[in-house]
Amino acid sequence: MFHERLTRAQSKVQQALDDALAFHPDLPVIQAMRYALQGGKRLRAFLVLESARLHGIHEGEAMPAAAAVEALHAYSLVHDDLPCMDDDDLRRGRPTVHVKWDQATAVLAGDALQTLAFQLCCDPALGARRIDLVVALAQASGAEGMVLGQALDIAAETAATPLTLEEITRLQAGKTGALIGFAATAGAILAGADPRPLERYAKALGLAFQIADDILDVEGDPDKAGKKLGKDAAAGKATFVSLLGLDGAKTRARALVDEAEEALAQYGMAADPLRQAARFTISRDT
Amino acid sequence: MFHERLTRAQSKVQQALDDALAFHPDLPVIQAMRYALQGGKRLRAFLVLESARLHGIHEGEAMPAAAAVEALHAYSLVHDDLPCMDDDDLRRGRPTVHVKWDQATAVLAGDALQTLAFQLCCDPALGARRIDLVVALAQASGAEGMVLGQALDIAAETAATPLTLEEITRLQAGKTGALIGFAATAGAILAGADPRPLERYAKALGLAFQIADDILDVEGDPDKAGKKLGKDAAAGKATFVSLLGLDGAKTRARALVDEAEEALAQYGMAADPLRQAARFTISRDT
Repeated sequence: MFHERLTRAQSKVQQALDDALAFHPDLPVIQAMRYALQGGKRLRAFLVLESARLHGIHEGEAMPAAAAVEALHAYSLVHDDLPCMDDDDLRRGRPTVHVKWDQATAVLAGDALQTLAFQLCCDPALGARRIDLVVALAQASGAEGMVLGQALDIAAETAATPLTLEEITRLQAGKTGALIGFAATAGAILAGADPRPLERYAKALGLAFQIADDILDVEGDPDKAGKKLGKDAAAGKATFVSLLGLDGAKTRARALVDEAEEALAQYGMAADPLRQAARFTISRDT
Repeated sequence: MFHERLTRAQSKVQQALDDALAFHPDLPVIQAMRYALQGGKRLRAFLVLESARLHGIHEGEAMPAAAAVEALHAYSLVHDDLPCMDDDDLRRGRPTVHVKWDQATAVLAGDALQTLAFQLCCDPALGARRIDLVVALAQASGAEGMVLGQALDIAAETAATPLTLEEITRLQAGKTGALIGFAATAGAILAGADPRPLERYAKALGLAFQIADDILDVEGDPDKAGKKLGKDAAAGKATFVSLLGLDGAKTRARALVDEAEEALAQYGMAADPLRQAARFTISRDT
């Protein structure tokens, strides 16, 4: 049932993203944007839609926010993959944007994807509180959120000693956690409801997600993951696996999923899809 | 009088930009953002403040929008200067961000400056219509505006024939015109007034601005300009000067400034600073 729901959300959010660029001119930058907007798990979009449903917001009234978070995520991947950043050739099983086109196109496509995310967040369908959503998206993605995480990641590469567990937790809270937090609280923000239970859920989920990523990097199948694995160990980077061990990391991820599920107690069975999403983050192979 | 007004606006918008990053951690990415936010003519901020004043909006109620347009402009410069784009070492008389730090820091600082621009546009001081301003900023800066202009510029580099006057006008309407259009209409948008006279003003001003840039590239003083000049001619790029000749370009720029001034007729003397700004764009040496 979870996978059916996720597949349905994937198809709907893809349609919303396609529509957003339907009337743009057929230039390489636009083609690269469309390319970068294809595929992926769409977990963040799913969180937006489920968080909206929990607050009585119809799917159509939340879809632009679901598309926005995926556009923002896509921008971050295109820029992260650049040679001056993580220098990755493969993403979602296909050549990265700067490999398929060139670096200039990748920089510009990423830039325009970020803009598109903010544009989608202003869609009148999102209702009167959409300005609050724009604020939340900016906080999650900028120098207080995702970019801060990336900046800490870069700083760590030239640091004299490997990161501690506390430091790596802070780094990941920015790098992946902030946008997951935005996605999970979007419904509460749009409804003007208390976002704190969903913040707690997202905080645990985001950390579990990153630990699962570190585990995948060690024992995942590169063909299924659609990207190069084993990079962190090869680079001698501190990860949750290097700090906790493989078993320790798995135990911690499971505990975090329990924590995420518990944070949803007040919503009852209506939050089951979000509980399943939490379990999915640590069982996925991609 | 115009220069006093401009200097005063420069100092106030710098303060607003400094304040926006005052509590961020002292990481290289944040330092690079602060660095990129220093200097410049602040013409776009000036247009925002004057356009606001024309519509009875107090300076303090427009300042976040003035800061936003400068943050957006700064992001575009940091990314444009990257080796994979225009590959410039010098900007505003100082080393560019990727030279002073590195490319990864420049990509991230530019990314976060774009986010900051949207964040500033959500400042409650801007009032109830700020969501319309966010929409306008996204339209001006993304794949329908500034990034579109950049994309056309990149496409032109590999085109078989040099651009025509019509093509270069379209390119520049995106690359520099769209953001100038945003700045000049910001006051009307915030006041819920008709933005069309200011759109006409900005369209003529933006084109005059770019022609003046092309003229500066040929006969400007690199020390005053604070950047490398003569690049377009060296690269064999079509510019307004290569297409119209130096005299023809100057005549066209003057005609456009007249057009810009005429578009302001209905505002009377209150629009004099905007008229002076238009004349300034073609008399500047930087």
